[in-house]
Amino acid sequence: MRKSAAHRFWFLLHHRHQYHHPSSFSSSSPLPHSRFLSSIPSLSSMDSSFPVTANNINPKVLKCEYAVRGEIVTLAQKLQEGLQANPSSHPFDEILYCNIGNPQSLGQQPITFFREVLALCDHPAILDRSETQGLFSTDSIERAWTIVDQIPGRATGAYSHSQGIKGLRDAIAAGIEARDGFPADPNDIFLTDGASPAVHMMMQLLIRSENDGILCPIPQYPLYSASIALHGGTLVPYYLDEATGWGLEISELKKQLEDAKSKGINVRALVVINPGNPTGQVLSEENQREIVKFCKLEGLVLLADEVYQENVYVPEKTFHSFKKISRSVGYGENDIALVSFQSVSKGYYGECGKRGGYMEVTGFSSEVREQIYKVASVNLCSNISGQILASLVMSPPKVGDESYELYMAEKEAILSSLTRRAKTLEEAFNKLEGVTCNKTEGAMYLFPRIRLPEKAIKAAEALNKAPDAFYCGRLLNATGVVVVPGSGFGQVPGTWHFRCTILPQEDKIPAIASRLTEFHEKFMDEFRD
Amino acid sequence: MRKSAAHRFWFLLHHRHQYHHPSSFSSSSPLPHSRFLSSIPSLSSMDSSFPVTANNINPKVLKCEYAVRGEIVTLAQKLQEGLQANPSSHPFDEILYCNIGNPQSLGQQPITFFREVLALCDHPAILDRSETQGLFSTDSIERAWTIVDQIPGRATGAYSHSQGIKGLRDAIAAGIEARDGFPADPNDIFLTDGASPAVHMMMQLLIRSENDGILCPIPQYPLYSASIALHGGTLVPYYLDEATGWGLEISELKKQLEDAKSKGINVRALVVINPGNPTGQVLSEENQREIVKFCKLEGLVLLADEVYQENVYVPEKTFHSFKKISRSVGYGENDIALVSFQSVSKGYYGECGKRGGYMEVTGFSSEVREQIYKVASVNLCSNISGQILASLVMSPPKVGDESYELYMAEKEAILSSLTRRAKTLEEAFNKLEGVTCNKTEGAMYLFPRIRLPEKAIKAAEALNKAPDAFYCGRLLNATGVVVVPGSGFGQVPGTWHFRCTILPQEDKIPAIASRLTEFHEKFMDEFRD
Repeated sequence: MRKSAAHRFWFLLHHRHQYHHPSSFSSSSPLPHSRFLSSIPSLSSMDSSFPVTANNINPKVLKCEYAVRGEIVTLAQKLQEGLQANPSSHPFDEILYCNIGNPQSLGQQPITFFREVLALCDHPAILDRSETQGLFSTDSIERAWTIVDQIPGRATGAYSHSQGIKGLRDAIAAGIEARDGFPADPNDIFLTDGASPAVHMMMQLLIRSENDGILCPIPQYPLYSASIALHGGTLVPYYLDEATGWGLEISELKKQLEDAKSKGINVRALVVINPGNPTGQVLSEENQREIVKFCKLEGLVLLADEVYQENVYVPEKTFHSFKKISRSVGYGENDIALVSFQSVSKGYYGECGKRGGYMEVTGFSSEVREQIYKVASVNLCSNISGQILASLVMSPPKVGDESYELYMAEKEAILSSLTRRAKTLEEAFNKLEGVTCNKTEGAMYLFPRIRLPEKAIKAAEALNKAPDAFYCGRLLNATGVVVVPGSGFGQVPGTWHFRCTILPQEDKIPAIASRLTEFHEKFMDEFRD
Repeated sequence: MRKSAAHRFWFLLHHRHQYHHPSSFSSSSPLPHSRFLSSIPSLSSMDSSFPVTANNINPKVLKCEYAVRGEIVTLAQKLQEGLQANPSSHPFDEILYCNIGNPQSLGQQPITFFREVLALCDHPAILDRSETQGLFSTDSIERAWTIVDQIPGRATGAYSHSQGIKGLRDAIAAGIEARDGFPADPNDIFLTDGASPAVHMMMQLLIRSENDGILCPIPQYPLYSASIALHGGTLVPYYLDEATGWGLEISELKKQLEDAKSKGINVRALVVINPGNPTGQVLSEENQREIVKFCKLEGLVLLADEVYQENVYVPEKTFHSFKKISRSVGYGENDIALVSFQSVSKGYYGECGKRGGYMEVTGFSSEVREQIYKVASVNLCSNISGQILASLVMSPPKVGDESYELYMAEKEAILSSLTRRAKTLEEAFNKLEGVTCNKTEGAMYLFPRIRLPEKAIKAAEALNKAPDAFYCGRLLNATGVVVVPGSGFGQVPGTWHFRCTILPQEDKIPAIASRLTEFHEKFMDEFRD
């Protein structure tokens, strides 16, 4: 069963253009993830007066999908406009965006020290003004001086080195060393506008044609499927095992790899998201060791999405970087090609709008690294504020710094609250009829499984929607809560899920839980077989 | 002559992989632009122990080149390190980076008002503190309040709408309307991390295969050739006429278009850079009218690089946007598909490191616009500081605002100084033996033509270098001045140029002119036939 399901998903990702013909689906077969496809336009003659039409643009663009900002968000925006025009037009008074890991949009406040340093670096003219002492912490002023001094010519508005300002990369490398206990080289760091452009760069480098495959977890964060589609490669899925807390089994990796090879696919890399998005699982150290050994054995690049490294909520799990694991099993540069992605958007900082991040690239030849540098240089550099912030999250205030206590209090408040929110929502989901939800060990998401009555599935089919998209649309219309259908992430065909962030402010969580419960009961009453 | 030269350039861009075999070049033929190709690695077996090698990465990445940060900059960085280790190791005491339009790296100071607003938006907690009144101008505080209020939930650290914060797009649209005298729609604005990602997005949308062509000026800014290579399309060159001040002739556009069509190329778009990079020309209004009519007639998307719109230095020329020209000849949305690129990196602001910019997209069907939006949404949004800055440059302080006088003084000082620098360097170049240099009417560059003695060309060939790359390398080693060989931008084969920015601070210009003159005389003495 699983094998055929995997094949179907892979085939469908690979042959997405067929989806223009919904009539080719048999309604009795398990609906594929990609039935939720309203973003692909009908190829009407409507726009034939324009030189560029949906018929003659790059088909890879048409194939690409990104459900986190897809149809459900368009509906949410319409409802929000409706609420603004008439606050009593819907049975709720606000839209709660639980579709996206965007903490500050839901009220999370930024870390004071980080913002102080950013403001001072944006306007260094005030650094030596006396009024500044009254407005900013001593260590933020010191840190800003240090950073401004690290920028050649103190030119805070200049393009930097295409990998990022050297002094900031030094700070990041030091932070990685402190985290891992193994050396890190600032020349391995490429600062990027968030993690997404870094992922695109690696996909662009590795994918030559649809015969090149990238092993991705299912469910996955749809940046990966979107990027693979845009670069014309093939997503080779491996299924995380929901029954064992979204376990990553080496046997499954092997099976999918062999299967892809037998079809002539060159599998080039393995994507691992740890902590997991959308699953919230945190890998065990032993499991990580098996993964790096598998990559070495098979000659796969390990693309390690580690943007949730600060988001671990259970005492029995700890984040370990894949670089630390690789080095600790004795693998050096010549043993494993490894790219670690980090972002300022996640963690306790949640600075999504700053678009800061980096990738640490190890185990590539100097020739290939030159090519990565060249591609980075075409876009000149990532934004300097994002670069500064990436250095700050990897070297926050230390014991004895004036800001340390406030920084720790802000950090702890956010992380402990996220822990409680995850638990409350998980418990609420698990009380619902037909719903099971694995524990959120890390990251920012819950990914409950919903067992839908046949009548609901039929109702969805009648509307040409995936059943989970149908459920999520109804949920949004009834409660104002925006969650993303599991079909946007991939799931074992015939199973249905949705992704819900744990990010609404804590005082809203009980109301969300009760609104979800009330909705779900009514939904089940309506469709129960 | 020109036709065959154009063919050669086009062919070579299209079949760049042949360049791995330098022996296939006849040394008697005019050396192609692409001889300057040291960044393509030799396909050695050196790195065979790595799973990813230069032999098995995406060949489009190998093909891509970006001379502005290429070999010459690598050499400059080495010399700089040498100077740091031993200040008397070279016959100059600093490296002057005239290779790149990066004003603040050469000492240009940021506009105070812009930085005040950015700092306040980075740390809005100080907006209502009394000390802030003493440090910041009244209108910067007001503007920051306005901007923070425009951000949903005042969440300055949240991902925004994927096109950018609506209130900022409103300000930009109002600025475009004030500039052009024609309506602009905030829904047509896509805020981006500088102009480069916007150019990539359009190339990604338009290019399906190597059979899709993009008309680009020669010489061109190598972002275009790099982006077309990365997306697997064909650059169809049209030559600017150096003899008429880098004139853009419609007859040349027609000829190249027909020629490309006859080879089975679907030409999809025309790139125009106005003011010109690297040429410094500013198009006349009449010429722009001809261009928009040509695009309408031929069904071409007009990709208008207008990032130098504030950089015009001669009284007889004025910047007109292509949107204004299109609307003034009566063309609406259904007549011409037009994308205008703008950036915060250029103009008098020169905020390269902030990575702000936008594209205004008009004349595309709603179906295609949805696809552009979808691709933007995969990367979530551009950085918020860059978004804010893009709104500020399109809506700077007005008469009566507290900052107005300082703002105008800073702006005028920068622009009038750039005017003087352009003139001084142009005059210096035109005095050199065998050198002619068109006037810099706009942008930030001079692109002098150098007539090199046969002996110098032979010496370059012996080193497997393009003659202009040979000249620029010698210039750098002798003077510390970094300029980019014309071969990085494209030029009529058999002609040689280099691009030199007008950005060194004004007090350094006389020394640069005299060092260039002294070097050039010695070089000509050494190689004169």
